[in-house]
Amino acid sequence: MTKRVFNFNPGPATLPLSVLEEIRDELLDCRGAGMGVMEMSHRSAEYSAIHAQTKASLRRLLEIGDEYEILFLGGGASTQFYTVPWNFLNIAKQADYVLTGVWAANAAVEAARFGKIHYAYDAKTPQGYLRVPTQDELSLSPDAVYLHVTTNNTIAGTQLHHTLRPENPDAFVVGDMSSDMLWRKFDVRDYGLIYAGVQKNLGPAGATLVILRRDLLERCQPDLPVMARYRTHVESDSLFNTAPVFPIYVVGKVLAWLESIGGLGEMERRNRAKADLLYQTLDANPDFFRTPVERTSRSVMNVVWRLPTTELESRFVKLADQNGLVGLKGHRSVGGLRASLYNAMTLEGVEALVSLLESFAANQRS
Amino acid sequence: MTKRVFNFNPGPATLPLSVLEEIRDELLDCRGAGMGVMEMSHRSAEYSAIHAQTKASLRRLLEIGDEYEILFLGGGASTQFYTVPWNFLNIAKQADYVLTGVWAANAAVEAARFGKIHYAYDAKTPQGYLRVPTQDELSLSPDAVYLHVTTNNTIAGTQLHHTLRPENPDAFVVGDMSSDMLWRKFDVRDYGLIYAGVQKNLGPAGATLVILRRDLLERCQPDLPVMARYRTHVESDSLFNTAPVFPIYVVGKVLAWLESIGGLGEMERRNRAKADLLYQTLDANPDFFRTPVERTSRSVMNVVWRLPTTELESRFVKLADQNGLVGLKGHRSVGGLRASLYNAMTLEGVEALVSLLESFAANQRS
Repeated sequence: MTKRVFNFNPGPATLPLSVLEEIRDELLDCRGAGMGVMEMSHRSAEYSAIHAQTKASLRRLLEIGDEYEILFLGGGASTQFYTVPWNFLNIAKQADYVLTGVWAANAAVEAARFGKIHYAYDAKTPQGYLRVPTQDELSLSPDAVYLHVTTNNTIAGTQLHHTLRPENPDAFVVGDMSSDMLWRKFDVRDYGLIYAGVQKNLGPAGATLVILRRDLLERCQPDLPVMARYRTHVESDSLFNTAPVFPIYVVGKVLAWLESIGGLGEMERRNRAKADLLYQTLDANPDFFRTPVERTSRSVMNVVWRLPTTELESRFVKLADQNGLVGLKGHRSVGGLRASLYNAMTLEGVEALVSLLESFAANQRS
Repeated sequence: MTKRVFNFNPGPATLPLSVLEEIRDELLDCRGAGMGVMEMSHRSAEYSAIHAQTKASLRRLLEIGDEYEILFLGGGASTQFYTVPWNFLNIAKQADYVLTGVWAANAAVEAARFGKIHYAYDAKTPQGYLRVPTQDELSLSPDAVYLHVTTNNTIAGTQLHHTLRPENPDAFVVGDMSSDMLWRKFDVRDYGLIYAGVQKNLGPAGATLVILRRDLLERCQPDLPVMARYRTHVESDSLFNTAPVFPIYVVGKVLAWLESIGGLGEMERRNRAKADLLYQTLDANPDFFRTPVERTSRSVMNVVWRLPTTELESRFVKLADQNGLVGLKGHRSVGGLRASLYNAMTLEGVEALVSLLESFAANQRS
């Protein structure tokens, strides 16, 4: 019998049930092809249609104009940490990095191998990364090639709710949006390059989405290995080598589901309702729940909080697990609790979490 | 109703039916976890068990000793084309490359960005790549760091049936075994580093298998981006960043299937029977079928042949397609016909192909 838990994992993460059911039903024979998508040539007519539909769906959802290219690459966002500066920097060029968490800092370390790096803001404190900066708080370089921003910080539970911009009018913004992608509408034109591991809101691990303004290809270093060049993947429509066809197919299914529920407006409404419910519960019990993140920097995707002791945190994680609420342990580098409320997490799941939190707190008090 | 064709695609390729059925049945709930593997955290106990079992199964099948590490990375074999020389070469170091096909030549081009490259053999002729070299035919460098060999050439339909060795006793062999992996037993100790996109015999596109002799880590360049270093992935058991968990899970299923049928001895017997049947049919009709590859270099995995005219080739591909035999068109760079006979292709499929070839030839003659 199929049992389903409420999966609060930070990624790979829960996927919509109807999407999983469709994939299951097509696994041995996708729409009469006589094979599943895992078995399809990346150059077949069947897969080409899936590839094109996935891109078209993303263009509709985010209203992405023709001046942007959509790529699906391998290697995860961490591979983009070095691919971005390798393409756009050299020893004479500088980029600004906004350090809002562990992943942002990791990205900056890789960039420093290729060019000059300036920290436009460093949110690190002895207590961790607890906030994101306002535009006024940035220290920007007048000649930076790009400004790198991690728009949602999965570990810290912080999120940008405004757009950061470079000082140099010719510079562009690079956004690591791995855990920020597609939970709401945003203006792609605020960015020159966006990258996102798909294993949060978009699909399973194994593909990395890149959205790139085409004119920026002119600024790329020309002599890189073929697979490291953005131009290679633009010119081949991400099919220079064998693309991760099955992960891309699942992304296509998730995008179709997003369109079917009413698009990103409806998705944002649902996501805010989930996060509001959880934050309100935490805020209503400040003696028992501590939310370390500054209020205006709170993430709608990854909610982090503490209980009075680590022992109580462990007991809650265990209890939640027994109640079919899994993946609530905070990242090993910061501890505490974390609930990832990605698109496929239902309000029902958050209600179950809130109910368990309230009864756990009440039991401890009595 | 589930329809299944005989899928002769060169990769992504056909997978064993029983493996697909198991994956289908676990897609919404894998062994009581309450979620599918696509949704599992790469750091969960459930996935850790899958990861460990997959590696253990590969160690058993190939009798891989503890001196070798098994990695699953992203980006495909083409990413290894530059990762290998980036780790092991620098401006003062040289590597030998054996050019037996398009992929080997592509790998050599990338390596030349990082160090000195010597072509130990170039099989290219005006008629294409029609053979692989013997050991005696190699022109080896006395001080090469490594010898790079593509052991099966998917496009050309050639395959090494003997082991090539470097001259420098301290050098190691790097094998691109993407389409050569796990169709038979071989001695891993003939190689220092093996890489293989898994989308041929092992699973779906989205993961790259690397088998690396651990002592070679000492020879790697230390200052590479974290994701480009083999050491990073060895020290984190391929879990430095989010691994492609679902593709690795499918690989684990395929390996379990290989063990269940009797291991690589039985697999090799079946594969040779399939290739023998097809080659015998082609050889028995030399007036109609032309096999360009030198006989001792013929691939057991990818059989290539020509018909008298390209028009007949197109007609045969179309007829085969109508009869449920798909993926028989040769690579776009060489034309002709190609049948990829990977592990999951059944003898029944090859019998159907042979039967259709014979009747097609007879019809043309009459």
